[in-house]
Amino acid sequence: MNTSMIRKILGQVLMSEGAFMLLPCLVSLVYREHEGLAFLITAFVTFSLGFLLNLKKPKTTNIYIKDGLVVTGLSWIAMTLFGGIPFVLTGEIPSFVDAMFETASGLSTTGASILTDIESMSHTALMWRSLTHFIGGMGVLVFLLAILPSSGGSTINLMRAESPGPSVGKVVPKISVTARLLYSIYISLTAIEIILLIAGGMPVFDSICHAFGTAGTGGFGVKNDSFMSYSPYCQYVAAVFMYLFAMNFNFYSFLLLKQFKKAFGMEEIIVYVSITIVTVSIVTLNIFPLTGTFSDSFRESFFTIGSIMSTTGFSNADFDKWPMVSRFILVVLMFSGACAGSTGGGIKVSRIHILAKTIGKSLKGYFHPNNIKKIQMDGHPIEHEVIRSVNVYLATFLCVFTLSVFVISFENMDPVTTFTSVAATINNIGPGLAGVGPTCNYAEFSVLSKIVFIFDMLAGRLELFPLLVFISPDFYKAALGSIKTKIKKSKA
Amino acid sequence: MNTSMIRKILGQVLMSEGAFMLLPCLVSLVYREHEGLAFLITAFVTFSLGFLLNLKKPKTTNIYIKDGLVVTGLSWIAMTLFGGIPFVLTGEIPSFVDAMFETASGLSTTGASILTDIESMSHTALMWRSLTHFIGGMGVLVFLLAILPSSGGSTINLMRAESPGPSVGKVVPKISVTARLLYSIYISLTAIEIILLIAGGMPVFDSICHAFGTAGTGGFGVKNDSFMSYSPYCQYVAAVFMYLFAMNFNFYSFLLLKQFKKAFGMEEIIVYVSITIVTVSIVTLNIFPLTGTFSDSFRESFFTIGSIMSTTGFSNADFDKWPMVSRFILVVLMFSGACAGSTGGGIKVSRIHILAKTIGKSLKGYFHPNNIKKIQMDGHPIEHEVIRSVNVYLATFLCVFTLSVFVISFENMDPVTTFTSVAATINNIGPGLAGVGPTCNYAEFSVLSKIVFIFDMLAGRLELFPLLVFISPDFYKAALGSIKTKIKKSKA
Repeated sequence: MNTSMIRKILGQVLMSEGAFMLLPCLVSLVYREHEGLAFLITAFVTFSLGFLLNLKKPKTTNIYIKDGLVVTGLSWIAMTLFGGIPFVLTGEIPSFVDAMFETASGLSTTGASILTDIESMSHTALMWRSLTHFIGGMGVLVFLLAILPSSGGSTINLMRAESPGPSVGKVVPKISVTARLLYSIYISLTAIEIILLIAGGMPVFDSICHAFGTAGTGGFGVKNDSFMSYSPYCQYVAAVFMYLFAMNFNFYSFLLLKQFKKAFGMEEIIVYVSITIVTVSIVTLNIFPLTGTFSDSFRESFFTIGSIMSTTGFSNADFDKWPMVSRFILVVLMFSGACAGSTGGGIKVSRIHILAKTIGKSLKGYFHPNNIKKIQMDGHPIEHEVIRSVNVYLATFLCVFTLSVFVISFENMDPVTTFTSVAATINNIGPGLAGVGPTCNYAEFSVLSKIVFIFDMLAGRLELFPLLVFISPDFYKAALGSIKTKIKKSKA
Repeated sequence: MNTSMIRKILGQVLMSEGAFMLLPCLVSLVYREHEGLAFLITAFVTFSLGFLLNLKKPKTTNIYIKDGLVVTGLSWIAMTLFGGIPFVLTGEIPSFVDAMFETASGLSTTGASILTDIESMSHTALMWRSLTHFIGGMGVLVFLLAILPSSGGSTINLMRAESPGPSVGKVVPKISVTARLLYSIYISLTAIEIILLIAGGMPVFDSICHAFGTAGTGGFGVKNDSFMSYSPYCQYVAAVFMYLFAMNFNFYSFLLLKQFKKAFGMEEIIVYVSITIVTVSIVTLNIFPLTGTFSDSFRESFFTIGSIMSTTGFSNADFDKWPMVSRFILVVLMFSGACAGSTGGGIKVSRIHILAKTIGKSLKGYFHPNNIKKIQMDGHPIEHEVIRSVNVYLATFLCVFTLSVFVISFENMDPVTTFTSVAATINNIGPGLAGVGPTCNYAEFSVLSKIVFIFDMLAGRLELFPLLVFISPDFYKAALGSIKTKIKKSKA
C-alpha cells in the first residue's frame, strides 16, 4: 500500500475541511453568535493537522484501487470525527456520538437527525450542517481533483472510490477536467436554486441552507417541519432541483458539450424519468382521498417521490400516514435510489436497469441458447466485469443491510421502524416510516445503534467497499507489510 | 419446442395425480366419509385425460432446457387445477380460487391455508392436503423419472427444472438411478417419522399426515393450533425430521454410498448446521423471559427455527409475540431457506454461501488484483455459469418479490402482514407475522391477492423460471412456431 500517498491525501482532505469551516465562522459574525469560536478553533486544529500530514513528499504518486478505497474510507471517517467536534464544543450537541451521527448524516447526505428541536440551533451550526451536505454531495476527493494541479498519479482510482455508480469519467478523458466540469455544474445548479428560492420569498439564510441540502441530496433543513410551512412555489422549486441533482451528471456534461442525442438517449435517464412519471401518477391517485384536491395530492406526491428517489429526505407531508400502496412505493424507491453519477444515494437506477437486463437475457437464453450477444446499454455492450460488480454490489448491500437490521432489532422497536431506519440511513435518505417517519428523529436509539447508523450512512454514500476494506484481513496484512518495509528502510 | 413430448409428459403427470387421489378415497372408506366420491370422480377424470394425452407417441424424445421449463410449469399448473376440484365438489372449500390456493399451497409445500377451522374438515380432505405436500416435496417429474423406464431423452432437463438449487444429479451419473435413490431416501425417512410419531402416542392418521407434511416441508396439519397441543416428544420428533428433510439429499446419498468424508465435508451442510446452532442459541436466550424455563425456550426455539428454515411452517408457539430480534432472525431464515437438493424452499443455503464467497473474493481482489483463482466449493472450482445463474436468481427473486408485495399492498393491510405474507408464500413457508402469523390464515385476502399468492407459491417451489417462461414473448413465438410447423406438416 502507498501509505505515504494516503497520508498526503488525508492531509489535504483535512486542510479542505478546516477551510470549509470558515463559512460557519462567517455566518456567526453576521448573526453575532458566539458559536463561531468553536468552529474557528476546530478549523485551526483540523487545518494544522492536515498541513503537517501533507508536508512530506511521497516517493511515488501511484494510487492503486486498494489505495483509493483506503484513503477514501479514512478521509470520510476523519472528516466525520473532526466535523463533529464544533457541535460538542458549543454544547449544542453535547454527546460525542450524537455529534458524530449528525456529521456523518450531513457528509453522507443522509439528513437523518438526532436533534429534536432544529429551530433552537444557532445559525452557525445550521449552516455547518447544510454545508456538510454540499461537501459530501459531490465528494471531497473529487473537490481536491478539481482544484489541485494533477499529481500525475492514477487519480481515476480516487474518483472511482468516491463517486457513486458502476462507472464514472466517461465524458471527458482527463480526470481533473471531469472533476472541474462536475463541480461547475454542481455549483451553478445550486446558485440557480438559491436565486429561485429567494425570489419566492424564502429568507436568504434558509435559501442557502436548503439549496445546499438539495444539491447534496441531503435533507437537513432549518425548520422542525422541514418544507411543510413553505409556500407551494418554494416546495416546487426544491422538488424540481431534487430531481435535477439526482440525475446522472453525464447528462449535463453532454448538454454542455452540445451532444443532445447522447444526453437524451441515456438509458438511465429514460428509466429514471419513466419511474418518476409512473410512481408520481400512482401516488397522486392513491393519496387523493386524503388531501381532497388534485393540486395538493400532486404537489405532495411530486415532492415526496422526488425527495425519496433522490434520497434527499425533505418532507412537505407526513407520508407515514399514506395508504400502504404509496408507502410501499416509497420503500422501493428508497432502495432503487437515484442515478449513478449523481449526488443521490441508494442502489442506483443504472444498477437496477442492468439487473433487469440480465434477467431478460436469462429468460431469452432458454429459447435462444446459441445467442451469446452481450447486454447493451446506451448502444455499447456492457463488459462482463461491470455486470459482475453490479451483482457483487447487490449481494454485499443485502448482506450489510441484513446485519445492520439485526443489530438494530435489539432495540426491540416495531418491525417497520427497525427495517426502515436502516433503509433510510444506508440509502442516505433520512426519514423512514413509523418511529423514524418524517415527523420523528433518531434521538431515541442507543449508542450502539447510532454507531451502526453512522457506519451505514458512510458505507451507503461510499458504496460499501471503501468502508468494508477495513474489515478485510488483507487490508491489515498490506498495512502491516508497508509499515515493516518502512522500518527496515529507516534502519538501513 | 417439442410440443408432442410436452403433451406426453403432461399426460403422465395427470395420470399420476389421478392415481395419487386413490389414497384419500381409501381414507374415506376407512372413516366411512361420503367425500371420497368427489375424489373418485376427479381421479377418474384426471387419469383419463392424462391417458388420452399420453396415447400418441412423440417423434423425438429430446427435451431441451426450454421444454423442461415449460413442461414443469404446465404440469404444476395442471396439478393445481385438477387437485383443487375435489375440494369444490365436496363443498368443503366452495370457492374455486380458495380451492386452487389450498392445492397450490399443498403442492408447493407452502402450507399456507385459507381454512379457518381445519378440524371441521373430513379425514379424506385432510389426507389429500397432506398428500399434496408429499407429492410436491420431491416433485412429480422426479417421481416419473424414478418409476418409468428411461425414455432415452435428455431427462436431466426435467430434473433440473423441478429440483431446487443451483445444481443437481452430481452423486450418480444416471438420472433414473438418481431419481430412484432420492425417492428411496424420501420414503424411508417418512416411514421412520411415522413410526416414531405413533410410538409417541400420536394417532395413526395424524402421524401419517404430519409425516407427509414434514417430508415435503409443507406444514399442513390436522389441528387448528398446529403442533401446540402435541407432546414435547412428538414436537421434537417433528422438529428433527424438519431439519433432516431440509438437508441436501446428496448428503444421504453419500452416506448410503459410504463416502462419509464427502458427506460430512459438504460445505452446504456445514453452513446449514452452523446457522442452526447460532440462531437456535440466540433465539433460546432471547425468548427465555417469555417462557420462564430453559427447556421450554429451547424446545420452542429449536422447533420454530427448524420449521422456518426448512420452510415447513408447523408451529408449537406463537412466534409473532416474540421479541424483535427473534422475529427478525425468523424473517431472514425465511429468505435463506433450506439446502439445495432438499424438499425445502427459500433462496437456499448454497446460493447464500456462493454469494458470500463472491463478496469475499471481491474484497480480496482489491488487495490481490492478479489473483484470478476461481471460487471453490466442496474442493471444486465453481463454474462461472453457476455464479451467473445464482446472481440472476437473486435479482429475479427480488423482482418477483417486490412486484408481488406491490399488488398485495392494495389490500391496505399493515406493512408487516403485507411484507411477510409474500415472504411466507414465495419461500414456501406458510405462516408469516402479524395478520398471517401462526395463529392466523389467508382467508381474508381478495381474489387478486390469492392469485398472486398462488403464483408465488408455485414460482417459489419451482425456482421462478418454469413459471416465468410463460411471461416471456419468446415462449409464445416458439409455441406459435411449433404449431405452425405442425399445421404445415398435416396439410402436406
